[in-house]
Parts: sequence; structure tokens; C-alpha cells
Amino acid sequence: SLQDQFDNLEKHTQWGIDVLEKYIKFVKERTEIELSYAKQLRNLSKKYQPKKNSKEEEEYRYTSTRAFLATLNEMNDYAGQHEVISENMTSLITAELTRYVQELKQERKSHFHDGRKAQQHIETCWKQLEASKRRFERDCKEADRAQQYFEKMDADINVTKADVEKARQQAQLRHQMAEDSKAEYSSTLQKFNSEQHEHYYTHIPNIFQKIQEMEERRIVRIGESMKTFAEVDRQVIPIIGKCLDEITKAAESVDHKNDSQMVIEAFKSGFEPPGDVDFEDFTQPMKRTVSESSLSNSRGDGKSEPKFSSKSKGKLWPFIKKNKVL
Amino acid sequence: SLQDQFDNLEKHTQWGIDVLEKYIKFVKERTEIELSYAKQLRNLSKKYQPKKNSKEEEEYRYTSTRAFLATLNEMNDYAGQHEVISENMTSLITAELTRYVQELKQERKSHFHDGRKAQQHIETCWKQLEASKRRFERDCKEADRAQQYFEKMDADINVTKADVEKARQQAQLRHQMAEDSKAEYSSTLQKFNSEQHEHYYTHIPNIFQKIQEMEERRIVRIGESMKTFAEVDRQVIPIIGKCLDEITKAAESVDHKNDSQMVIEAFKSGFEPPGDVDFEDFTQPMKRTVSESSLSNSRGDGKSEPKFSSKSKGKLWPFIKKNKVL
Repeated sequence: SLQDQFDNLEKHTQWGIDVLEKYIKFVKERTEIELSYAKQLRNLSKKYQPKKNSKEEEEYRYTSTRAFLATLNEMNDYAGQHEVISENMTSLITAELTRYVQELKQERKSHFHDGRKAQQHIETCWKQLEASKRRFERDCKEADRAQQYFEKMDADINVTKADVEKARQQAQLRHQMAEDSKAEYSSTLQKFNSEQHEHYYTHIPNIFQKIQEMEERRIVRIGESMKTFAEVDRQVIPIIGKCLDEITKAAESVDHKNDSQMVIEAFKSGFEPPGDVDFEDFTQPMKRTVSESSLSNSRGDGKSEPKFSSKSKGKLWPFIKKNKVL
Repeated sequence: SLQDQFDNLEKHTQWGIDVLEKYIKFVKERTEIELSYAKQLRNLSKKYQPKKNSKEEEEYRYTSTRAFLATLNEMNDYAGQHEVISENMTSLITAELTRYVQELKQERKSHFHDGRKAQQHIETCWKQLEASKRRFERDCKEADRAQQYFEKMDADINVTKADVEKARQQAQLRHQMAEDSKAEYSSTLQKFNSEQHEHYYTHIPNIFQKIQEMEERRIVRIGESMKTFAEVDRQVIPIIGKCLDEITKAAESVDHKNDSQMVIEAFKSGFEPPGDVDFEDFTQPMKRTVSESSLSNSRGDGKSEPKFSSKSKGKLWPFIKKNKVL
């Protein structure tokens, strides 16, 4: 019946709203996952940042440590892009759809309200028609009874003409009343049939049409949101790609020659290798006699310690280039 | 001093290992974040899957619900790509670097062991030289004393020639011993100077060179890992892009006309709008007399209920196309 169809549509459109609300919830949970992911990446980046004004910070002079710092900073931007996903999904999908689902609920309510009103109206018309028909039926019976009474009086020779005339007038009156009821019933019936036609061929189809359009708009809307869902995600890809390019660039700028040169510069000392240790000749007292040997090496300048700690302008670097030495 | 330089290098290379281990830890934490993100996305996808053999599953006939299902499945693949990031970072970075850092620690240990051995060797040589010098000095003093004793005896007229001769021989012996010590000292000195030169110009520079090369390999290695870090991430972008394209495609396949047609098909009933209600004429008994009016509308077929529940082959769909009606 029509009522079954309304019930089915009421259930189906409620299901449509449930689907929409489920989708909103799904996207909301996705935004929370993105936020949590971004937060973890930001914390990771923060955790490995050099402590300000620390020795650690000074160590970030090397290309390798600078590349790590760049990686950390890019991871932070990378995290930011997942926040962008979250924010855009919230503003372009969940917020929009939440507003829309409220409108949709309102609109749905109004269509089914109109449906119920139309149903009630046609039922009221039906009751009026029934009442009109019953009145006509009753009046016909009354007219019939009055007619029979008149005929009975008319056939009775013991009845006065005045009484016959009274019964005839009564029968005519009743007949007229029945005719009036018939006219009213006929008019009510015509009105009902017209209303019923209007109901089934205009009002109800209009309501169904509006519900169908509402449904179709809901479907279009959820389709658009699903497209936005992918689009919001796709939009950050080039920026994430740039973050990765920056990490690659930083990694490629790692220069082992530069870094080891910096270590050499940092650790070069005023230290130079000690020269040869001189010969110390203790034979001077012996020189008083003619010695049988002569030590050519003897310069007797009294040095007795190798220059393990001597300071000099010529600096020895901890890393001596092999080719300089060999 | 050289020892300071070794100390500095020992500290610096330890710092290098710490940096490497810190980077390994950083990447490990990144892989954990990726895994947790992937797990959350997978759970999200799973949570919204239709329950098997449920009414819900049947509802996935509509293009809109199928698009949602496609979104869920693509999110699952999307999650899988973040697992790929995690797995590749683990195998290509953390596992590799963990192995490498063990080798590096071993190599570093061996270089500083060589350095200490060289230092100890040159100190031992220095001690030998000192001992040799002291012996020479002592022997010179002994020779000097023997010479003075001989000279004193030689000048003493009360001493026998035999005693003088004995003192002369003793002085000559002591002189010879001093000469021998001098020769040995001289030889030790030459050996020491040669060793010392070797130490400062060959052994130590070689060790420094090896440490420098080790350092440079470490820097190259961390740079390569940083590049891999970005590369592993970049590799999944096209696949994630494909997931997003599939979501877009599914969203674009949402067909509101198709879905509303399916609703119409599902809910169409055997119900058709009732026809006009017929006029019921209760005036038949009145017909027995000549009635003053005649009701043209009367067919008297006795119908008294509108076909609110009539069954018919001609079906009315809940959504009637407006153009069919108006």
C-alpha cells in the first residue's frame, strides 16, 4: 500500500542519513589518525633537535650533522602536511557534511510530514464521503417509509383527506430531502474523486519526487565528499615530495672530505714531531788524556729530552695526508 | 701532545659512533611511527567494512556504498604502503647501519690499539736509550776515576812499578769499557732516532690516516642512509597516488540516477492508485414511484470502498517521474 511505500522510504532515507553519518565518522577518525601521525612525527623531529647552546649544537657544523638537522626539519614540514590533510578533511568534508546532514534531516522530516498530511486529508475526505453517503441512504429510507405511509393512507377509505394530504406532503418533503442528500452526496463524491485523483496523481508523486531528489542530492554529495577525500590527500603529495627532495639534497651535500678537514682544523695542535735526540758525550773528562777513539756525532749541547711537548709554529695535524709523508 | 691528539680523536670517533647510533634510533622510531600509522589506517578500514552476510552487505549494491567500500579497500592499500616504508627503512637503513656500526666499533678499537702499541714501543725505546746513556755516563766516570788513580800512582815514587802497571791497565780497561758503552749508546741513539722518525713520520700518520678514512667512510655511509631514508619514502608516492586515483574513480562512479532507480526497483509494489469511487444509489425503492429527478450518475454496482489495497499488474513506483504525471 501507499503507507508501506512511505514506511519503506522512511526507512531507506533514514539509512541514507546513517550512511552519511557513518561516512562523516569515518572521515573524522581518519583526521584523528592523521593528527596523531603528524604529532608523532613532530615529536620525533623535536626529540632529535640539538639542545640549544649545548656542545651538541656546536657539532652541527659538520655537513653530516647539518644533513641530519635538515632531515629533522623536513620531517617537521612533512608532519605539517599531514596536519593539512586533517584540517582540510575537517573543513571540506566533516564540517560541510555535518551541516548538510542537519539540513537533510530537516528536509526529510518535512517531506514525510507532507506525506502524512496528504494521507490524513484524503482519509478525512473519505470519512466525509462516507457520512454523506450514509445520510443519503438514511434519507432514502425515510422517504421510502413516508411514501409507503402515504400510499397506505391514500388507500385507506377511513382516513380524512386532510390526513392523506398531510401524508402526501410529508412523503414529498421526505422525497425532496432524499433528493437534496443525493445531490450533496453526489457533489461530495465528485469532490472526493477529484481530491483522490489529485492525491494519487499529483500530491503523492510530488512528495515522492522531492524525496527522490533529496536522495539523489545526498548521493551526489557523498560522492563529491569521497572525491574531496582523495583530493585533499593528493594535494599534499607534491609538498611531501619537496620535503623528501630537501632531505635528498641535504644527504647529497654530506661531504666527508669537508667534515674530516674540519676535524683536522679543530684538533690540529702546536705539536710537531720531535727532532733527533742529540748525542751526549760524557767523555770530556777523558779528553784530558789522548783518547783512542773520537766520536764524530758529539756536539755536546746538553739536550737530554725528546721534544714530546715542544711548541712550534709548524703544526702537525692529526690526519697527515699520506702523500705528504711517504 | 700526540697523546692529546689521540685522546681528541678517540673522543671524536666515539662521537661519530654516537651520531650513527642516534641516527639508527631516529630511523627506528620513524619505522615504528609508520607501523603505528599503518595499523591505525588498517583498523579504520576494517572497522567500516560491511559485516559479512548481513543486511549491510546487501546495501553495498548501491554505487555510493560501493564507492565507500572502494575507499576502505584503498585506505587498506594506502596503509600497506606505509608498512613498506617501515620495512624498507628497517632492512635498508637500521639493519645495515647496525651491522656497520659494529664493524666500525671494531675497526676503531683496532686503530687506537695500534696507536697505543706504537706509543708504548717508542717509550720503551726511549727508556732503553736513557739506560744506555746512563751506563755510558757511569762508565765514563769510572774511567775518569781509574785514570786519576793511575796518574796519582804514576806520580807517587813510593809505589812499585807493578802497582803502577796494574793501575795503568785498570785505567786502560775502564777507558775501553767507556768506549764500548759509548759505542753502544751511540748505536742505541741511532736506532732510537730512526725508530722515532719512523714513529712520527710513518706509523702514527698511517694510523691517523686509517682513522681519517674510517671517519670519512662513516660520513659517506650516514649520507647514503639519509638519501635512502628519503628514497624509501619517495618510492611509495606513486602507489599511494594510485590508491587516491582509485578512490577518485570510485567517487566519480557514484551514480545518483542509478542508485535511486535501484531504490525504485526495490520498493515498487503491486499497488496502483485507486480509481474513482462509484456513486451508490439508494433511491431504488423510491423508483417505485415516479421520481421527480433522475440521477444520470447512478450505475448501482454496489462498490463502497476505494481500492486502497487493491492488487494489480500495473505497478506504481514510489518515485513517479513528474513528467509522467503532470
